Amino acid sequence: MRVMGVDPGLTRCGLGVVEASPGRRVSLVAVGVERTPADWTLDRRLLRLDERIAWWIGEYRPDSLSVERVFAQHNLLTVVGTAQVAGLALLEAAKAGIEVAAHTPSEAKAAVTGSGQADKAQVQHMVARLLGLAEVPGPPDAADALAQAICHAWRPTTMDPAHDGTATPAQKAWLEAERAARRRPARRATC
Amino acid sequence: MRVMGVDPGLTRCGLGVVEASPGRRVSLVAVGVERTPADWTLDRRLLRLDERIAWWIGEYRPDSLSVERVFAQHNLLTVVGTAQVAGLALLEAAKAGIEVAAHTPSEAKAAVTGSGQADKAQVQHMVARLLGLAEVPGPPDAADALAQAICHAWRPTTMDPAHDGTATPAQKAWLEAERAARRRPARRATC
Repeated sequence: MRVMGVDPGLTRCGLGVVEASPGRRVSLVAVGVERTPADWTLDRRLLRLDERIAWWIGEYRPDSLSVERVFAQHNLLTVVGTAQVAGLALLEAAKAGIEVAAHTPSEAKAAVTGSGQADKAQVQHMVARLLGLAEVPGPPDAADALAQAICHAWRPTTMDPAHDGTATPAQKAWLEAERAARRRPARRATC
Repeated sequence: MRVMGVDPGLTRCGLGVVEASPGRRVSLVAVGVERTPADWTLDRRLLRLDERIAWWIGEYRPDSLSVERVFAQHNLLTVVGTAQVAGLALLEAAKAGIEVAAHTPSEAKAAVTGSGQADKAQVQHMVARLLGLAEVPGPPDAADALAQAICHAWRPTTMDPAHDGTATPAQKAWLEAERAARRRPARRATC
């Protein structure tokens, strides 16, 4: 299964595509960061990012697209722009007819490092290791997009570790992070 | 000048187009509300709204498009979806190469009623009166979209009331609401 992960942002939007094979193996298909200048008008920035996301989907043809979940109460300064770029990714996925998903940053971190509180360096390090890369992938946005894609490829519903009792420590942390996210008050707005 | 106003929302998105003539006359071109079912997936809702907004722009060919400004600290439950629909309106305007703007709800209310604190019934009543309509336009979202369009058509930069001293009470209230919005702390996130 091929998954495209998106770490949405107006200034830097991380994009990463991985191919997941049976046995929890993942390989890198593509990774990059799309940027728009802060002095462009918002409509122009959104148009550029929409065009780039559409290009990535057309070029790499993922089976599903997973976007980092946006929380309204975090980062008031950037949440509107972040939500808008996440919306564009969902729009382009819908146009292409591919499945969409959204995982929280904690879920993505837990999926690749075993801890929902991992720092950016740990996420970059583990993403490189899991994908067998000699170098850590670019800026944190790029690694976060790959972590989002790996998180979705390895989601428990695919592998059913809860049912057969074979969950690894990382999967257990993932399940715990997901359960914790579900326990949080409903007042949080997400996409 | 023809202006399309957008009151963004996932469940109900108000759309209104007005034609503004010299002498502060405005006439109705079209008004409506585009809806998406709450049980649809988010990507499908965004795709439908994107298609409908693009249709409105193509059908009514506005010179500019004005979207209600989204504030991150209001309505945490809906801000992500609202921001995403606002983003789609900006995206489609950019694709069509038309000018975009964003005014706060207070500015739009002040433009049509003379008060930034006007309630929904007052806005509906004044929008109908200004456009010479026998009936109050549909749900509040429809009236709000028209108020947004009228607000932009009558924006002080077009008419320059501050320069020639001919500002009406409504325009003075508009200017005051706009100044107040600019004085608010920069920490608020808007689109």
